[in-house]
Amino acid sequence: MRYALGIEYDGTDFLGWQRLGDGPSVQAALETALSYVADHPVAVTCAGRTDSGVHGRGQVVHFDSDADRTPRAWLMGSNARLPDSVATLWAQPVSDEFHARFAARARRYRYRLLNRRVRPALDARYVAWERRPLDADAMHRAAQALVGEHDFSAFRAIQCQAKHARRHLQRIAVTRIDDEVVVEVQANAFLHHMVRNIVGSLMLIGRGEQPEDWMATLLAGRDRTVAGPTAPSAGLLFLGPLYPAQWQLPAEVTL
Amino acid sequence: MRYALGIEYDGTDFLGWQRLGDGPSVQAALETALSYVADHPVAVTCAGRTDSGVHGRGQVVHFDSDADRTPRAWLMGSNARLPDSVATLWAQPVSDEFHARFAARARRYRYRLLNRRVRPALDARYVAWERRPLDADAMHRAAQALVGEHDFSAFRAIQCQAKHARRHLQRIAVTRIDDEVVVEVQANAFLHHMVRNIVGSLMLIGRGEQPEDWMATLLAGRDRTVAGPTAPSAGLLFLGPLYPAQWQLPAEVTL
Repeated sequence: MRYALGIEYDGTDFLGWQRLGDGPSVQAALETALSYVADHPVAVTCAGRTDSGVHGRGQVVHFDSDADRTPRAWLMGSNARLPDSVATLWAQPVSDEFHARFAARARRYRYRLLNRRVRPALDARYVAWERRPLDADAMHRAAQALVGEHDFSAFRAIQCQAKHARRHLQRIAVTRIDDEVVVEVQANAFLHHMVRNIVGSLMLIGRGEQPEDWMATLLAGRDRTVAGPTAPSAGLLFLGPLYPAQWQLPAEVTL
Repeated sequence: MRYALGIEYDGTDFLGWQRLGDGPSVQAALETALSYVADHPVAVTCAGRTDSGVHGRGQVVHFDSDADRTPRAWLMGSNARLPDSVATLWAQPVSDEFHARFAARARRYRYRLLNRRVRPALDARYVAWERRPLDADAMHRAAQALVGEHDFSAFRAIQCQAKHARRHLQRIAVTRIDDEVVVEVQANAFLHHMVRNIVGSLMLIGRGEQPEDWMATLLAGRDRTVAGPTAPSAGLLFLGPLYPAQWQLPAEVTL
């Protein structure tokens, strides 16, 4: 039987989603908890891997188990064994054809920038800090050049393992909420560091150091070395994937 | 010369605001930082003391120093010496008659309740968790019985040192934002544990275990032992005091 789970996590104290050697990873924590509930080794596949320090609100995984457990048992049992910084939000049986990564039609991220002269004391785990004033409206206008299907090589990490750099960016919005500038972005899929590299370049526009048409220039140039720096991991939150309705998953992850 | 400072802090790792023996307190952290900047011992007086685990967004303090320092030097210098969980947001000279506690005409608090079946993994430092469904509208209606000047003995901690229990509660609002129930309350001043005791009683109404008129009954009875339990500290945030315009403080703390 195949199951899907919704996962929330605070990435601050993890080396990232993916199990890598002996370091703490969200995947390892989840597999340990589920293996205990299942009473056999469980391997999970996620919708989108996140880097060290990046948080997840609506991550989705699937795994296979023939253990006779109700969805409630997977939910309650995994939460009882997970560390405080990881929680299973829902659990349900799915078709054997469902695949958390390949079935996802879109993924959404949110990036929070605290924009004031003093560093954060509250929410320091969840925001990046920019002391120089940012023009959120200029950032929003500039970001619209990214909407559509493009080669995003300009915003791709050197270590990115994707076969190609074409992605369909469906929506990007930059808004100011009091002293925070929030970037929300949705695409069919993302390259490694793509959101943080986009935010890093938008920040240069927001500070007035680059013109608004710079995003279009960077995109066309496909050269990572001329774009802005990678924005810090703490500000990034993976809101989660979106799936076609056919998989009958909870409303929060269904298109 | 007297100075006023705006202070933000994450209370998770402190025993509370007040310096008590050798335990970590926000007051001790701030006095240590300011004493370093001043090059003489500095003692601060705050607008409202907060308990262990309670956070502050707009705390205000005053202190006296004859050290020749600009407001910018107090701001930058204190932030350089404070732990990551405390930050000075602003600093300015004030009249010698200003007193952070006695000049405040009102204080505001916010309480965040995560209301879903699964414990929080994100924001776990900043929310209390209630798994049973809460009727926020019923809580809001019930809370209106507290508005006005009353004897709040029913919501006063046993260890409260105030001379009397009369307080003027100016506004209380309970709203639902997705899976959070947020309580905001403003009064001229608060008794020890008053917000957390009010929230604890409102939760019983929200769960349907007490009728909406129970708050009025509790208030009239003035008996702490029949009211609801004290809600956890993590959900509570001190938004800060409000002062008359005469003191010429920043807009965020001026009535």
